[in-house]
Amino acid sequence: MSVQLDDQGRLRHFLTTEGLDPRLLVRILDTAESFSGVIGKSVKTVPLLRGRTVINLFFESSTRTRTTFELAAKRLSADVLNVAVDTTTTKGESLLDMLRNLQAMQADMFVIRHNQSGAAEYFARHVDPGVAVLNAGDGWHAHPTQAMLDAFTIRRHKGPFEQLRIAIVGDIRHSRVARSQIHAFNGLGAGEVRVIAPNTLLPSDVDSLGVQVHNDLSAGLRDVDVVIALRLQRERMQGALLPGESEYFRHYGLTESRLASAHPEAIVMHPGPINRGVEIDSALADGPRSVILDQVTNGIAVRMAVMTMVLGVQPDTAREVS
Amino acid sequence: MSVQLDDQGRLRHFLTTEGLDPRLLVRILDTAESFSGVIGKSVKTVPLLRGRTVINLFFESSTRTRTTFELAAKRLSADVLNVAVDTTTTKGESLLDMLRNLQAMQADMFVIRHNQSGAAEYFARHVDPGVAVLNAGDGWHAHPTQAMLDAFTIRRHKGPFEQLRIAIVGDIRHSRVARSQIHAFNGLGAGEVRVIAPNTLLPSDVDSLGVQVHNDLSAGLRDVDVVIALRLQRERMQGALLPGESEYFRHYGLTESRLASAHPEAIVMHPGPINRGVEIDSALADGPRSVILDQVTNGIAVRMAVMTMVLGVQPDTAREVS
Amino acid sequence: MSVQLDDQGRLRHFLTTEGLDPRLLVRILDTAESFSGVIGKSVKTVPLLRGRTVINLFFESSTRTRTTFELAAKRLSADVLNVAVDTTTTKGESLLDMLRNLQAMQADMFVIRHNQSGAAEYFARHVDPGVAVLNAGDGWHAHPTQAMLDAFTIRRHKGPFEQLRIAIVGDIRHSRVARSQIHAFNGLGAGEVRVIAPNTLLPSDVDSLGVQVHNDLSAGLRDVDVVIALRLQRERMQGALLPGESEYFRHYGLTESRLASAHPEAIVMHPGPINRGVEIDSALADGPRSVILDQVTNGIAVRMAVMTMVLGVQPDTAREVS
Repeated sequence: MSVQLDDQGRLRHFLTTEGLDPRLLVRILDTAESFSGVIGKSVKTVPLLRGRTVINLFFESSTRTRTTFELAAKRLSADVLNVAVDTTTTKGESLLDMLRNLQAMQADMFVIRHNQSGAAEYFARHVDPGVAVLNAGDGWHAHPTQAMLDAFTIRRHKGPFEQLRIAIVGDIRHSRVARSQIHAFNGLGAGEVRVIAPNTLLPSDVDSLGVQVHNDLSAGLRDVDVVIALRLQRERMQGALLPGESEYFRHYGLTESRLASAHPEAIVMHPGPINRGVEIDSALADGPRSVILDQVTNGIAVRMAVMTMVLGVQPDTAREVS
Repeated sequence: MSVQLDDQGRLRHFLTTEGLDPRLLVRILDTAESFSGVIGKSVKTVPLLRGRTVINLFFESSTRTRTTFELAAKRLSADVLNVAVDTTTTKGESLLDMLRNLQAMQADMFVIRHNQSGAAEYFARHVDPGVAVLNAGDGWHAHPTQAMLDAFTIRRHKGPFEQLRIAIVGDIRHSRVARSQIHAFNGLGAGEVRVIAPNTLLPSDVDSLGVQVHNDLSAGLRDVDVVIALRLQRERMQGALLPGESEYFRHYGLTESRLASAHPEAIVMHPGPINRGVEIDSALADGPRSVILDQVTNGIAVRMAVMTMVLGVQPDTAREVS
Repeated sequence: MSVQLDDQGRLRHFLTTEGLDPRLLVRILDTAESFSGVIGKSVKTVPLLRGRTVINLFFESSTRTRTTFELAAKRLSADVLNVAVDTTTTKGESLLDMLRNLQAMQADMFVIRHNQSGAAEYFARHVDPGVAVLNAGDGWHAHPTQAMLDAFTIRRHKGPFEQLRIAIVGDIRHSRVARSQIHAFNGLGAGEVRVIAPNTLLPSDVDSLGVQVHNDLSAGLRDVDVVIALRLQRERMQGALLPGESEYFRHYGLTESRLASAHPEAIVMHPGPINRGVEIDSALADGPRSVILDQVTNGIAVRMAVMTMVLGVQPDTAREVS
């Protein structure tokens, strides 16, 4: 999707990890690395986006994602406005009219979450030159900053992607997170990406995604270095695709013992918030293999990285606020 | 209304455009002009109100107006607090008690929207010396910053007011925007201000407003330089004042062809959000005559201007944040 | 409760006034004194917490308390995030998981309001070293910053605590404010602390609180220097503890004439928002004895003091932002 790149192939928007030049994927991770040091300090602010305006435009509520984007923007010294849109009460105004109005306020960046796939791209196609759009989740389509914070976390813990076997377990079909992860990990050259799910939770185009498909958890986890449990989002399910939570846990819930076939040093990830005893056992989620909270921390550095890249600001000019 | 002026005739609050000294109206526009350059830059912040606290106090929800006031305050480096008051759950506390409590927090400025006419003036009469009150819309009474951003947009596009014929079309009766526009444009010396509406949508005091009244759209638009369509606010209408939206559009909806009698270079304005196909045809709203999005952009500079004026801060001391 | 202190006895969290070293109570007041000068200036900001992140985590809605904490943080130049948690929709996630996730975002401080007693302490026991927790009200248990702003207000108006008789009137049983006040005033060496209430509104452990108990208002107010009316929180009452508001006012509502037995220069306080004609007569609330609005103003300085103390920042290094 070329709309997210400019003529020189630089990132102008961040809409999807699909088809993105692997060098850009690596550059996001490297830039995030430079910010992750800032986050640990007591003064966490850098003035890279001082005087810039970021509008968080959330058509779906999400405290967690909104908060990390807001934190990332504030740590870059940007001004942040939160605009929560109740789609049930704004039928009168088209998405395009809203976009044009917000853009007329001369924001520099929109962070958009919407329950319709393609909403962020629609914004990106219609904003003025110089205004950036970040996709914070659109329908079942993509959640690219989540995928990149996962990739960042994997690289930190397990090193180069070429050697790695990564398994994603759960409702692949309705997961924008899984879709963005698959494209990111493949783009970064992962040795093998597997999806583990019952057939009812696999997308119809699974054969074209470049993944190994497993229905059986133990077989799917064999020798993997990274296991990612997806959140079971019951509200996304249409019809009776699953017999129930306990049944799901019995077949696909992660436990320490079911990881017996994985690499002994395999790490366990989850995009959060976790449903304990549904996708993952509490002991495993809180145990030494789990890097779930690292993912949250890394999310801020990765979002700072993307925010500076789409505005063409060089993170190597970062200085702390005196 | 002298409460908005101090002994030297300077603006202390901004409550209404009615009866305001034309030199103050012009000064607001001139000050906004100096800020409109700042807005276009990548660093949009000036430190004029650093360390000052602005409280947005919204008793009616309004994302658009709240957002532009918040942006204006942040671009002046003020600290901004948003306080949304659900009037259905705060019956126990009087407006005056709320005012006194918020004032005790030592805010420097209140931006108030309320569904009761006179609410902003009530606040202004009761705040301590040195605290400023801006009216962001009170009942059917006034919306003075909207009127001034409209005046600013007109001056930029059409030059001196003395030569101009301006027509306001729609529900004049229930429109605080129209009321504030009429007083502002007359104060600024507009050649002629017209209102175009069915009799049911005219205010009872229309004869005293200094406007030409037209029931017929084509006659009313003859030779005008500026056409302002008002938003049809169905929730404001009490009883069956109008036969329906399509009927309204047939008689008062603006289209390119109905502007045939206007000046060939007439501009078209709307306070937003527009109801396409009700007050205005999409082709006209998106066409070359339309300055609707300019109005949004100008709203920030005008609000910055008013905010600095009521606090007695000179915009000519503006320096960018290093 | 030692969790709020570090090994050297310094304040790490602020959870309760109960059992706190009197020197720490005094130090909070003295530190607040140094900030109260800043608040009166036109530039109210000091850079003491620049680059730090404060998360306001409110499980109960409270515009007033949230606003003053937000103002205090902003005046210290911290970045503030407001997270309102609707407890009815977050059943799926445990408090501990939420805490861990928010902490992974590397906030420096959590300001927590929760309807469960002990929620703030629970947070404090589980956060990482270096992260501070402020209790903004937990169930019926404690509201320590409210108690300290009351103590600050009393010290300013009435001088040393040793000489003072202080009476707290109303629903002591369900009041976290009263509980924190009693511990703070006794810790600060108050001459006498009285509670005045019907037996149904006294806590079962009242005998161990170090207070004089009165059922009769006039007897209880005899010779007091400070009278504190509590807000009648009907939503907290379980069952028919009270015959009605007018009955309550007849027996326990404060009026100028019922203060006849108090010291002639006694001051009147209320944590707000007041129910006029229920706990307190309007003439008294708005009269010269009332320091109710001073309490609001002082709340900001007191919260600034606590915020700097728990992060180990010295207020004597305060410089204004240039």
